[in-house]
Amino acid sequence: MDTIRIGIVGGAGYGGGELLRLLLAHPHARVVEVTAKRNAGAPVHGVHENLLGATSLVFTDRDPAALAREVDVLFLALPHGEGAARMAAVLDAAPDVRVIDLSGDFRLADAAEWEEAYERPHPAPGLVGTFVYGLPEAFRPAIRASRRVANPGCFATGAILSLLPLARAGLLAGPVALNGVTGSSGSGTDPKPGTHHPERALDFRAYRPLRHQHLPEIVRALRGAGGVAFQPAMVPHSAPLVRGIFTTAYLFPAAPIPPDRLREVYDVACAGEPFLRLREETPRVAVVKGTNFCDVAVAASPDGRQVVVTTAIDNLVKGMAGQAVQNMNLLFGLPEIEGLSGPGMHP
Amino acid sequence: MDTIRIGIVGGAGYGGGELLRLLLAHPHARVVEVTAKRNAGAPVHGVHENLLGATSLVFTDRDPAALAREVDVLFLALPHGEGAARMAAVLDAAPDVRVIDLSGDFRLADAAEWEEAYERPHPAPGLVGTFVYGLPEAFRPAIRASRRVANPGCFATGAILSLLPLARAGLLAGPVALNGVTGSSGSGTDPKPGTHHPERALDFRAYRPLRHQHLPEIVRALRGAGGVAFQPAMVPHSAPLVRGIFTTAYLFPAAPIPPDRLREVYDVACAGEPFLRLREETPRVAVVKGTNFCDVAVAASPDGRQVVVTTAIDNLVKGMAGQAVQNMNLLFGLPEIEGLSGPGMHP
Amino acid sequence: MDTIRIGIVGGAGYGGGELLRLLLAHPHARVVEVTAKRNAGAPVHGVHENLLGATSLVFTDRDPAALAREVDVLFLALPHGEGAARMAAVLDAAPDVRVIDLSGDFRLADAAEWEEAYERPHPAPGLVGTFVYGLPEAFRPAIRASRRVANPGCFATGAILSLLPLARAGLLAGPVALNGVTGSSGSGTDPKPGTHHPERALDFRAYRPLRHQHLPEIVRALRGAGGVAFQPAMVPHSAPLVRGIFTTAYLFPAAPIPPDRLREVYDVACAGEPFLRLREETPRVAVVKGTNFCDVAVAASPDGRQVVVTTAIDNLVKGMAGQAVQNMNLLFGLPEIEGLSGPGMHP
Amino acid sequence: MDTIRIGIVGGAGYGGGELLRLLLAHPHARVVEVTAKRNAGAPVHGVHENLLGATSLVFTDRDPAALAREVDVLFLALPHGEGAARMAAVLDAAPDVRVIDLSGDFRLADAAEWEEAYERPHPAPGLVGTFVYGLPEAFRPAIRASRRVANPGCFATGAILSLLPLARAGLLAGPVALNGVTGSSGSGTDPKPGTHHPERALDFRAYRPLRHQHLPEIVRALRGAGGVAFQPAMVPHSAPLVRGIFTTAYLFPAAPIPPDRLREVYDVACAGEPFLRLREETPRVAVVKGTNFCDVAVAASPDGRQVVVTTAIDNLVKGMAGQAVQNMNLLFGLPEIEGLSGPGMHP
Repeated sequence: MDTIRIGIVGGAGYGGGELLRLLLAHPHARVVEVTAKRNAGAPVHGVHENLLGATSLVFTDRDPAALAREVDVLFLALPHGEGAARMAAVLDAAPDVRVIDLSGDFRLADAAEWEEAYERPHPAPGLVGTFVYGLPEAFRPAIRASRRVANPGCFATGAILSLLPLARAGLLAGPVALNGVTGSSGSGTDPKPGTHHPERALDFRAYRPLRHQHLPEIVRALRGAGGVAFQPAMVPHSAPLVRGIFTTAYLFPAAPIPPDRLREVYDVACAGEPFLRLREETPRVAVVKGTNFCDVAVAASPDGRQVVVTTAIDNLVKGMAGQAVQNMNLLFGLPEIEGLSGPGMHP
Repeated sequence: MDTIRIGIVGGAGYGGGELLRLLLAHPHARVVEVTAKRNAGAPVHGVHENLLGATSLVFTDRDPAALAREVDVLFLALPHGEGAARMAAVLDAAPDVRVIDLSGDFRLADAAEWEEAYERPHPAPGLVGTFVYGLPEAFRPAIRASRRVANPGCFATGAILSLLPLARAGLLAGPVALNGVTGSSGSGTDPKPGTHHPERALDFRAYRPLRHQHLPEIVRALRGAGGVAFQPAMVPHSAPLVRGIFTTAYLFPAAPIPPDRLREVYDVACAGEPFLRLREETPRVAVVKGTNFCDVAVAASPDGRQVVVTTAIDNLVKGMAGQAVQNMNLLFGLPEIEGLSGPGMHP
Repeated sequence: MDTIRIGIVGGAGYGGGELLRLLLAHPHARVVEVTAKRNAGAPVHGVHENLLGATSLVFTDRDPAALAREVDVLFLALPHGEGAARMAAVLDAAPDVRVIDLSGDFRLADAAEWEEAYERPHPAPGLVGTFVYGLPEAFRPAIRASRRVANPGCFATGAILSLLPLARAGLLAGPVALNGVTGSSGSGTDPKPGTHHPERALDFRAYRPLRHQHLPEIVRALRGAGGVAFQPAMVPHSAPLVRGIFTTAYLFPAAPIPPDRLREVYDVACAGEPFLRLREETPRVAVVKGTNFCDVAVAASPDGRQVVVTTAIDNLVKGMAGQAVQNMNLLFGLPEIEGLSGPGMHP
Repeated sequence: MDTIRIGIVGGAGYGGGELLRLLLAHPHARVVEVTAKRNAGAPVHGVHENLLGATSLVFTDRDPAALAREVDVLFLALPHGEGAARMAAVLDAAPDVRVIDLSGDFRLADAAEWEEAYERPHPAPGLVGTFVYGLPEAFRPAIRASRRVANPGCFATGAILSLLPLARAGLLAGPVALNGVTGSSGSGTDPKPGTHHPERALDFRAYRPLRHQHLPEIVRALRGAGGVAFQPAMVPHSAPLVRGIFTTAYLFPAAPIPPDRLREVYDVACAGEPFLRLREETPRVAVVKGTNFCDVAVAASPDGRQVVVTTAIDNLVKGMAGQAVQNMNLLFGLPEIEGLSGPGMHP
């Protein structure tokens, strides 16, 4: 296997930092260039202080389209809307380049649906629908066959992985509540009121109840996998964690799912998956921190009329940069765990 | 109004500390004696360091029955089962004393149900059913008319207050998911693995999915209030908070409840209640910290088929000691907010 | 005692919130008006959510000089420099009004020294030196006799209270290291990189080593109290706390101070002070949270050549708003603890 | 290079978990067996949940002496005193085995000094003095030439690395204050009052002022390196961190050390060291988390009469398991950074 030449556009955020942490240690990757408009000229380790000594890269202000011509794969880690505005130029300049977009711009198949969820016009409606949704556990063959990947949202990753086994088994029918809990790193590197330490450190709160922008991608993925009438009630919450997404999915199944049957469905679903670990007890965000794992546990009432699935992921790894590397591995025919096999730290 | 003479049994825990903080400032209360077997002889401020200068009380090892004869009201803040074992002797010794029990021993009306929830034999089955369930918002007249109050559990308080308005309005019909999140102070003062700082500080996890011991008291209270077939799926979670219970209740109503109707139900329900505050946005545990308030917010999907209610309380105040003082005020005909009106600290 | 009419200028910050929390419960205070330019027209509880139900005040944009004419005392809680720019107009408009300034503008007696510490021109150099330094434990008689008080800085309060007994006993001679640790609320309500939750929650760091702007006021107060050649090495640190200043003062005394002598000095110094509590063990910021207490502990090496004093305060109370209320009590001849006697919460 | 066969005695603690995390990824290491009396028979990943999938090892209850015969190096991660009690048997059974002891048992050269510091009789006084003190930056040649290494304490590592350059340059003369701050993982895996989350999460406190048991090893190492009369005043503190030791060292030098000279001394000292990183600004524990780095910054007053050195390490890595692996690399002639080169996570 040759070395994959990599460009990262918008590398100064937490997603960019994690991409660098993972790709600098990846045996088949070479990060050629990292752009970051506001930090152009600064050494990468000036922003990502943990990388001091690990890289001598300096942020540039290069145009993404120009960079695309010199790499095998381009990761875009820009705010929603900004990558889409440059995408046509990138694809014109380098028609063969692989693109992995970490934003929400190309996760939906329909521009109107996107505009409703993100409450703005889509900057490149003509390209909507040309990206594969990059959740390997759900769409592995399509990702392998594609050149353009829309990397899933962090809440969406947790939610879809929680329910995918039920959907595939034809059991995702009935009311579903999706309770999501996120750490503060999901809000990005810019300080804002909701991540102000005096306010966040002792608080727990909900936000955007029933109307989070990840909802359409969750619905789309799980309907596609078999949950035909799936329409969950979803409430995201902010916790005083730094990393982590914890999802508690409640299903009131149309037909009872006894505990044994439930367990069997998840045993089978997790069996061949390198990043799904079925836990006897509850998953813990502390245990998946820094890793690409999604830990899962299931419970059902004795009569099978109440089903609960809990999952924990690291929002910056499986919920963002790690999953992006997993997608890169698929695009280039590498083993899926390449560069992603390290255990996390505990505690 | 004369001064109420108060005895506290088991005052060295967090519940005891909060009772003391509130009662020492209560205009009609005088704490006569506080027992704590393991700390007998130690000044109260040696255990509750925040009370240095606020009281010169010393913990005693007095028998609860003997203490009962010298006070108007006895608060029992003992581990589950320990208070019940002494209750008959207390009531024999002082038939007229008011008793407010902070444990779970007398919250259910049926000993068999208790034994299933708490997985042990009840130490005083003959007394089960002789206590009023001390949630004033639900059972105010009964509390006023009684002498014995079983103070509700912290998760139960959050859950019942979330759904009580719907139950009373006859709208609590359909599947319900109850997602509860608690801070570490709910586990008490004894160090244990789940409250070990290196493990708890960065973690979020579930526990006892679908089988928490507060479930029967929740079901009993809400069925009694009108939610006839109410049988929620409840999952409690541990968050890296110190104080706070956050409840997210999801209802898939049998008949749609449009957003306006939902709001109206909660407006009416909160209107006369001194400790319920309806919020436009989400409740926040940071904002109710140290207070007896239960902050509430509601949301419904436009079609009324998904309803979400979120509440935040301080588990040690409205979820424990504050509610116990609220019950004391009711037992003695005092204004319900006496000693409970202070705002919390922020941040 | 009549009721004191109070105006608060710049009441939307954490200091303003704490002033309101304390003054709304003060038996002799009435908050007449609270200004906050950016929040004018908003209810106070919209910003300080903990005050919902405690006040119906609405922030105004009134000119401080106009407000000064209608109150007995004006608290200024503005950013450094902003209060000073308005001070001459205030004093012209209401020559008899008492002023308590929470900023650093008038803490030093010399404009040149101020300009070096704050690295900018002083907006009202002519008024420098006309305020009393409002640390009651050090300057009680002068505060009682004055009309204008410069409320001390939070680090300065912890540092001065740590060493004042030594200075007064003539023992503050020799090298001194002042190690200060602060919670994030000391940075105010505006989100900034150093208070961004993902960065702050797991971090401990130093800042401005040997050159913090509180150093001159510390030196001035302690030299005045007897530490003639006092020139400490001070390093402030940021900890993942919300509230609290912890000071560890190391003295290498010119003449040995044996442990017994050290203890005696602090016993005497704390004896009559309502807000100093000498602890056998270490002070804890968790225990003074929400209170005006300064907890103190001392240790010396057996040979008396190394002396350590540790103190803990709540930066927003004894380090800011509580001390301002203590100063108000002194200005109006009230008992010093009026409105400040409540115990804190624990945990 | 052949593979090093490794035995770990007492592998169920945080130090054992970190040894495993590092050694399982080390290119020349093979962990043969891990003992843990209380967990014998349990899979390693049952205790160290982060290692699920990374190892199939099962804890054993093997006698250390028996295990010593089958490995090239034995790591002992036992409570103070327990390893020493078994050491003679280990050395009898396997005279050639390398031993790296993570406890404090053999860090001092004198049994009487040890007994004073640890307040108990030494279990193997005859072996005291036969171990090299395993701080590579201070004693690299001696470590390389030895078979038995006493791994330094976490506070000691931070303190010695802070001052070693000054000692070697002959500048460590004058009063020194050592202010240490630790996270909760330094207290080990057993829950205790000081690590109870409700108490620790919002607290900052000092403990054992002027008499921490690491003081003698710090004094010994720095006097040996040139700080002839070195006798620091040291106060350790507990912060609400999980990982990290932050040291602030204050020196009042006998002869002034101007800022430029200070910087030059540390530039030279850090130049060849793989794990020392000189920072322009302050070190941050968040940035060294999970790594073997010790980040350093220096400051001096313009007149050179006050010097401050700050360092940050991860107490479980450079302060424990990482340093133990660094020592192993030295014992076996490997590059010092083998298995230790990964960047940490941020945030």
